[in-house]
Amino acid sequence: MSYDDVETPAVLIDLDIAEKNVQVFQEYCDSHALLLRPHIKTHKLPFLAEYQIAQGAIGITCQKVSEAEAMVAAGDMRDILISYNILGKERVERLRQLSQKVTISVTADNTFVVQGLSAGFKDNNKPLPVLVECNTGADRCGVATPEEAATLAEIIAKSSGLEFAGLMTYPPVGGANTTHEWLSLAKTLIEQKGLEVKVISSGGSPDMWLAHEMPLATEYRIGTYIYNDRSLVMRGTCEFTDCALTVLATVVSVPNKNRAVIDAGSKVLTSDLLGLKGHGYVLDRPDLTIDQLSEEHGRIVGNGEINLSVGEKIQIVPNHACVVSNMLDEVNLKRGTKIEGTCLVTARGKVW
Amino acid sequence: MSYDDVETPAVLIDLDIAEKNVQVFQEYCDSHALLLRPHIKTHKLPFLAEYQIAQGAIGITCQKVSEAEAMVAAGDMRDILISYNILGKERVERLRQLSQKVTISVTADNTFVVQGLSAGFKDNNKPLPVLVECNTGADRCGVATPEEAATLAEIIAKSSGLEFAGLMTYPPVGGANTTHEWLSLAKTLIEQKGLEVKVISSGGSPDMWLAHEMPLATEYRIGTYIYNDRSLVMRGTCEFTDCALTVLATVVSVPNKNRAVIDAGSKVLTSDLLGLKGHGYVLDRPDLTIDQLSEEHGRIVGNGEINLSVGEKIQIVPNHACVVSNMLDEVNLKRGTKIEGTCLVTARGKVW
Repeated sequence: MSYDDVETPAVLIDLDIAEKNVQVFQEYCDSHALLLRPHIKTHKLPFLAEYQIAQGAIGITCQKVSEAEAMVAAGDMRDILISYNILGKERVERLRQLSQKVTISVTADNTFVVQGLSAGFKDNNKPLPVLVECNTGADRCGVATPEEAATLAEIIAKSSGLEFAGLMTYPPVGGANTTHEWLSLAKTLIEQKGLEVKVISSGGSPDMWLAHEMPLATEYRIGTYIYNDRSLVMRGTCEFTDCALTVLATVVSVPNKNRAVIDAGSKVLTSDLLGLKGHGYVLDRPDLTIDQLSEEHGRIVGNGEINLSVGEKIQIVPNHACVVSNMLDEVNLKRGTKIEGTCLVTARGKVW
Repeated sequence: MSYDDVETPAVLIDLDIAEKNVQVFQEYCDSHALLLRPHIKTHKLPFLAEYQIAQGAIGITCQKVSEAEAMVAAGDMRDILISYNILGKERVERLRQLSQKVTISVTADNTFVVQGLSAGFKDNNKPLPVLVECNTGADRCGVATPEEAATLAEIIAKSSGLEFAGLMTYPPVGGANTTHEWLSLAKTLIEQKGLEVKVISSGGSPDMWLAHEMPLATEYRIGTYIYNDRSLVMRGTCEFTDCALTVLATVVSVPNKNRAVIDAGSKVLTSDLLGLKGHGYVLDRPDLTIDQLSEEHGRIVGNGEINLSVGEKIQIVPNHACVVSNMLDEVNLKRGTKIEGTCLVTARGKVW
């Protein structure tokens, strides 16, 4: 099959590029004695998670219980960290059932979550490892100070059914130094309480090549690196030739010589900008800008004449690969320009 | 069932509000002798399309063939306009098959599309009605001038298997006057060629209450009005109490007194801003702003103390209802605060 046979809009995954991306970053982690725990949010595909593990990853990261369930049902995920505050009696029970099938750990940043986890695991056959999520500057979740981290670590350690497992952070971009200081102090304070900090989990794609600058971290969580995207190219993390996920679209209208419309809109490319202008990069056409999206239309304008014809197919590197993976039920797998087949996106839409 | 029983994040559809929205705008259209053809992109639910038709709509609007297929497979849609340039031999054949089951018409803005439609319908048992899409200022698709509209109308009329049916536009917001002038001239030019302009189809939710200011239009296409959303409230088209679609989310973290994090991120709310600041309106809490989304996290900041607790549920009116309908496989149907059940989103993810 060639691109001509693909019904557009379509998401294409180049397996040669994805495999190379996995290998190269695994080698980097190996050379720095850093364990790698890829986040499956980027691909949501069990076979790619298994590939990451086969190359040396210690397991995977998921964000929600339902995501982990979908991955475990379809493949051997070995060891899963769910890096999220898990709430609700029923959901904690599903987590407990999952813990019978696979090694699993979670994070928490507050006592309400810890109490819920403890209630669900107090009669379990093994304790649930819980990491304290730390806010080292990204200002999303996470305890606010190293002192609070130590307090919560102690609460976890004393909660029946739970085991304190370490620290987790999603550091701010460019924040290796402050994150290192923060976590060092937290580690010291926790050890002073007689607790061991087995795991220090850091992550993030933008700073992936600087992961070794925080030697305190024992493992690194990273998602986008397998596909890469326009946002990472713009940050200098990779090149367009390293982008494994592209959107294939067809030009449906060329209303005038400076404008064209494609059949991929926000239902495929999404409105994620990640600080960029425009909604993706048209391969081999740096003169073009996707300046506007509606649900089923992408509008393209050019520096000069647009030089596109109705019926022509174009390939787009989206701003943000992970969210594009979440839009369609299936993706097309390719190597070079040869389409090898389609694949259901197993963990698509799993937000619970 | 109450909100307590709903696993979050979840999309809630208030049927009382949705039904009232449908009724009120149907009455408006009836009072102005304007035919109503709702766009199903907002709800993607056959039972709501059937409700719209039962209240007086003449049929529905879809944007893609697969969307129309999904709707026809699940309900009586009566008469469908696919307001899109349909390309590709296989897709045109699927359109032809659909035309055997339901009254169907399409739009085109270029000869390449017209030729493809003609090739697919030349041996069909009945001609395909084709409307010329006109660019009256929104600068997306559409022929550029009334003269071009007349030329394309004549080409359609002369194409075997096709029948010229009229004009279609998605007018710019606030553009009733210029749109009226544009279409008047196109109509005159086309009639001078001896062709009848049976249908003039206009649309758009922002200007819905001004639809009567363009008496030339025979029918009105509109999607969002059934659910409404924050963007329409901000434009003054409706009130928050008219918003039928909300997102139910749980507070998972309150890291400090000025910040909270909910379990709904861009995988539910999407990054659509539609010119607004923030990612939705928290019902009954005008002091809060959802200032940042990642895939599974929504960050909330407040004017003063956030006054939210971990585990608490909040209800959000999203910026853009249509795209939220496309994110999850099912929605929860409610009346008031009583959850009546869940419903699969039949036409979700249909982009082909």
